[in-house]
Amino acid sequence: MSGFAATLAENAQHINETLDRLLPIDDRPESRLIEAMRYSTLSGGKRVRPFLVMTSARLFNVAESCALRAASAVEMVHCYSLIHDDLPAMDDDDLRRGRPTCHVEFGEATAILAGDALLTRAFEVLSEEPTHSDPKVRCELVAALAAAIGVEGMVGGQMLDLLAEHHDLTIPAITRLQRLKTGMLIGYSCEAGAILGKAPEPARNALRAYAHDLGLAFQIVDDLLDAEGDEKDVGKKTHKDAAAGKATFVSLLGLDRARAQADMLAVQAAEHLELFEEKAQPLKDLARFVVNRRA
Amino acid sequence: MSGFAATLAENAQHINETLDRLLPIDDRPESRLIEAMRYSTLSGGKRVRPFLVMTSARLFNVAESCALRAASAVEMVHCYSLIHDDLPAMDDDDLRRGRPTCHVEFGEATAILAGDALLTRAFEVLSEEPTHSDPKVRCELVAALAAAIGVEGMVGGQMLDLLAEHHDLTIPAITRLQRLKTGMLIGYSCEAGAILGKAPEPARNALRAYAHDLGLAFQIVDDLLDAEGDEKDVGKKTHKDAAAGKATFVSLLGLDRARAQADMLAVQAAEHLELFEEKAQPLKDLARFVVNRRA
Repeated sequence: MSGFAATLAENAQHINETLDRLLPIDDRPESRLIEAMRYSTLSGGKRVRPFLVMTSARLFNVAESCALRAASAVEMVHCYSLIHDDLPAMDDDDLRRGRPTCHVEFGEATAILAGDALLTRAFEVLSEEPTHSDPKVRCELVAALAAAIGVEGMVGGQMLDLLAEHHDLTIPAITRLQRLKTGMLIGYSCEAGAILGKAPEPARNALRAYAHDLGLAFQIVDDLLDAEGDEKDVGKKTHKDAAAGKATFVSLLGLDRARAQADMLAVQAAEHLELFEEKAQPLKDLARFVVNRRA
Repeated sequence: MSGFAATLAENAQHINETLDRLLPIDDRPESRLIEAMRYSTLSGGKRVRPFLVMTSARLFNVAESCALRAASAVEMVHCYSLIHDDLPAMDDDDLRRGRPTCHVEFGEATAILAGDALLTRAFEVLSEEPTHSDPKVRCELVAALAAAIGVEGMVGGQMLDLLAEHHDLTIPAITRLQRLKTGMLIGYSCEAGAILGKAPEPARNALRAYAHDLGLAFQIVDDLLDAEGDEKDVGKKTHKDAAAGKATFVSLLGLDRARAQADMLAVQAAEHLELFEEKAQPLKDLARFVVNRRA
């Protein structure tokens, strides 16, 4: 395992421990719902978004215990979006992170509720005192998350994705779609660290610019993995976009130019971080990792 | 229209205006999602939960503009839960408030996302400064809402409801199911007023006891309307419980005892409010209204 892969794995371990604590199981009859929530959140995954929260928070010397809670809330939101996205009425996916999707394992109704409950729990965690002693900071965490994942963010992007099935998209239209669908939560992951650290505006702007480029690079690589990858390696169904005749960065740019674009964005993302000097190295490493990943 | 019905209608009017402002439509491509959110929230309804927020808040002299935002957030949550509950994978209902349900009108995928977006928007509204100048109050509003509608509240109750399809339930089991599924959000509606007003503990306890009895009475009357009501009057499909062989207060107690139980609970609910003296009259009127309603 390379140095950075080990760093990422160690971070994932801490996130998993925190998620395990924040989603405790018990023996009440409705605990099947908690089982479904845990099935979908404690199922591996690289924990890229939580890594962004933790690493951004460290730039501003935020207490680890606070950052871990915010990072876990972000991962809950990510997992809720995957559960609902995988539903038969949406993308109808059977495989996720190498395992049956939540609705395949628990049934559709339970999967809908598990997603709802994860979203709710994420807001709860952010609003509670252990996340930050200053309630103003906690309110800001809640409001910024809601803005990133609502109609003008992730869910709006998912809506665009649904509508896109019936239209040919241009590069600007796909870029906007992906900025909403995946970019906004990636942006929030960096922003959460800045909010926790009461970071000054220039630092926030730098992180915002980094997240913007990183999010787009991330999505282009997702498209490349779908076009080139093998289901077993990637851990989810591949070649879906082509089968659906869906416009993607790859279908519009071709493999080579899409790859070059992702590489360029990763370099550019890192350049936004100069003001943090060597403290930003993990974020720069992540940008490189994101474009080189195989899953 | 009786005096109280007019009071309730006037309140609904203010809530509708606030919801209309909080869910603005625009002409971006993803606005179909906002249309679906508005379709399901601005579709009539008695606005019982918002009325509870407004009336509880008045007990503590909370500014109307703050209470209206909290009340609208509660209604958004209620509407999200109805949208997801009506989905084919859940209760599979076609009719709600006398109109086609959200997924019938907009498709299943859009309905799932509209519910998600309403839930998200509710938390956003609560966390924003116009809801209360004190961020600690806003955090408390967010945390208490999440507790009321998560695994240990509404969504947990919906899970119990799903599981109940395969079991005979006892009266204590149904009482617990309904306390989670509908009682917790009704309880939160009263609690929100107390939180906004930084109410002292005895006042909170009194409201909690009131909401507990009111919630149960509300549910028993729902069961009675399902058993006795006409689809056209009630605005949703009736006789569903019997058709599904579902245990309800009515199937276990019979019509007469269920009716007597609801009446008794309404009287008892009002009795918890003595410490507020005549200021609690609207809440007492509501308890009476809830058991006498025809829809």
